[in-house]
Amino acid sequence: MGREIERKFLLKGDAWRDLTEGVHYRQGYLNSARERTVRIRTISDKGFLTIKGITVGATRLEYEYEIPKDECNAMLDDLVEKPIIEKKRYKLDYMGFTWEIDEFFGENKGLIVAEVELESEDQKFEMPEWIGEEVTGDSRYFNSNLIHHPYSKW
Amino acid sequence: MGREIERKFLLKGDAWRDLTEGVHYRQGYLNSARERTVRIRTISDKGFLTIKGITVGATRLEYEYEIPKDECNAMLDDLVEKPIIEKKRYKLDYMGFTWEIDEFFGENKGLIVAEVELESEDQKFEMPEWIGEEVTGDSRYFNSNLIHHPYSKW
Repeated sequence: MGREIERKFLLKGDAWRDLTEGVHYRQGYLNSARERTVRIRTISDKGFLTIKGITVGATRLEYEYEIPKDECNAMLDDLVEKPIIEKKRYKLDYMGFTWEIDEFFGENKGLIVAEVELESEDQKFEMPEWIGEEVTGDSRYFNSNLIHHPYSKW
Repeated sequence: MGREIERKFLLKGDAWRDLTEGVHYRQGYLNSARERTVRIRTISDKGFLTIKGITVGATRLEYEYEIPKDECNAMLDDLVEKPIIEKKRYKLDYMGFTWEIDEFFGENKGLIVAEVELESEDQKFEMPEWIGEEVTGDSRYFNSNLIHHPYSKW
């Protein structure tokens, strides 16, 4: 647990595509309320159900259960809040930091963002050449907002 | 799956208590919306997470996963919609029919109801002597309403 400090960027060009393979994600929410989030997600050939509460002090209740992928897909098709999020996630190590690049499909097709996780807000790191404009504070890019206000509607 | 036809009654006296042992249930909802119900429930020493959709035609999506009881109890204490339902359920066979008696605790303490499941709405059955007034159509006794309007507030 503990606090996540992440900075988020848009990308420049496609050079990063030669450096990594992507993994397919589909995800949606049975409840997107912050007090009791219930997420259904497939990652490649596995399925997961994840329950999260709000952060109280330094702790946040979080439980994750692996469940059959076909049941996840049935729930993503017929039960969760719409639209679902579909994306490919790529991981890349650069100068001691791990970057996660999310390429979205479906209602968010065309959107690609990269995130790096830091240990403090002012930690220094080297910027790969394919990193573009920073969008860390821009709430349009929050995962929860990409459901209710997808990129195709901006 | 298919349609459940149940009739619900209040009870007269305590004679049924000598005939059966009860099993303890605690349950609550991470989402109580009919379109995507997410229920957390402990039954005796087991824990379950159950997801249900609405009925479309003759089918209703329903998935149940057994999960650790201590994780269920943590979610019932800190994550689910309040108040939770706490009850003891007793099963009794009488003249070819199974009766389920729910004795509630917590915010519904004092409420005891019995249900019998039938194959059709006009199916005949023998009434045990400890069965009282019928409350089948009374929405105050629906499980979902016992959360938002518990018996102690009637």
